[in-house]
Amino acid sequence: MARKAKASKPSANGKKELLRQTMLDAAAKLFAERGFAGTNLQDIADALGTSRPLLYYYFPNKEEILASLVEEVTVSSQHQSTRIAVSTDTNPGETLRFMTASHAKLLLDHAVAFRVVDRSEADLPAAIRKVHDTAKRAVFDNFSSVIARGAQIGHFRPVDPQLSAFGILGMCSWTAWWFKPSGRLSLQQVADGIADLAVHSVQRQEARRPKTSAISDALQILREDIDHLELVTKSRSG
Amino acid sequence: MARKAKASKPSANGKKELLRQTMLDAAAKLFAERGFAGTNLQDIADALGTSRPLLYYYFPNKEEILASLVEEVTVSSQHQSTRIAVSTDTNPGETLRFMTASHAKLLLDHAVAFRVVDRSEADLPAAIRKVHDTAKRAVFDNFSSVIARGAQIGHFRPVDPQLSAFGILGMCSWTAWWFKPSGRLSLQQVADGIADLAVHSVQRQEARRPKTSAISDALQILREDIDHLELVTKSRSG
Repeated sequence: MARKAKASKPSANGKKELLRQTMLDAAAKLFAERGFAGTNLQDIADALGTSRPLLYYYFPNKEEILASLVEEVTVSSQHQSTRIAVSTDTNPGETLRFMTASHAKLLLDHAVAFRVVDRSEADLPAAIRKVHDTAKRAVFDNFSSVIARGAQIGHFRPVDPQLSAFGILGMCSWTAWWFKPSGRLSLQQVADGIADLAVHSVQRQEARRPKTSAISDALQILREDIDHLELVTKSRSG
Repeated sequence: MARKAKASKPSANGKKELLRQTMLDAAAKLFAERGFAGTNLQDIADALGTSRPLLYYYFPNKEEILASLVEEVTVSSQHQSTRIAVSTDTNPGETLRFMTASHAKLLLDHAVAFRVVDRSEADLPAAIRKVHDTAKRAVFDNFSSVIARGAQIGHFRPVDPQLSAFGILGMCSWTAWWFKPSGRLSLQQVADGIADLAVHSVQRQEARRPKTSAISDALQILREDIDHLELVTKSRSG
């Protein structure tokens, strides 16, 4: 069902879409800085160096901008996580890893918009609030379903699927507040790292390795695992 | 160093403290509902059914209330996590479990105050902001230190301590936004559940080792072993 973007030179529609996105980004930035109530359309037009009528053409009012931000963040998250949730051919661990990394990446790619929507939640006009709440709930359900399925087949520990979903979504959401593009880790590294923590937080564990800082023990573990690799390769070539 | 509360009938000081706390809670609730800027001292006095002079006696201005909320939430978190971090007699897994459960519980016990402080971060007067930032940074350092220590002695996987600390703090912080006292899980169950996810997210696993026959997995395990050996040797030579 996904529409594919045509790989051609920017059409009139493409240019319009680009302008619309630029306006949306500028508005999100101002909302983040001054709050939704503290920003008016004139401020946004000023920040863009454009005329108010041109802005009106795309966004007749501030609520329209907020609705677009909800689409860009919450509704996109809903569609993305639903697409991943229904691909039941992979094991729950890989599904959860992909779902978490994709969710974190989407939030980080739209960090300003996400922060604005998150902060404005209580002030969203009823119709937009409904869309936002429904989408947010669907994302939550997608996460808790894959966790419940993993726990059911013994791939995950017998964790509480709802609590775990809240925990993992919390890790993802928080990234939009602390991540700095100029920092030590790239956006992709953060998304993958969070997904790695998420999977391990619920995955079933067997006996622990020796809790030791002795080099001899670390070498022993290494030896065991080389033995294991040898076994694996032997069984392939044999 | 902790002062013990005297188990006696409420003294004059005890009554004062109780009244002060009641005022603080009422103010936090109004700030959460109407925003800091949208609330004045008269609103708080009205909500309490008290006179403005009495409120003034405890809180000469709104900033004073905000400073008290920062003390109650961020500075308390700092002291608590520092106390736990220095108790190096327990293993890193147990330290991280206790630190996370205690942090989540503190945030949930002061959920409204935490939400107000979190939302008002950008608007905090400079002096209060400095206290808040320092305490928040100390909490982060306490979490990343215990994770780094756990990774160094091979108790934890070779995770990124900073990224993991952000992830775990994100799980804790998020609880203050979704937890409902009337819900299926008690406050203590949520705090313990989040701590359980946190510990498992970083703890070393053995489970995958014997289970897999993929060469790529065996190589991945070897890589983790080498990372661990590197950490161990580094800590020796450092």
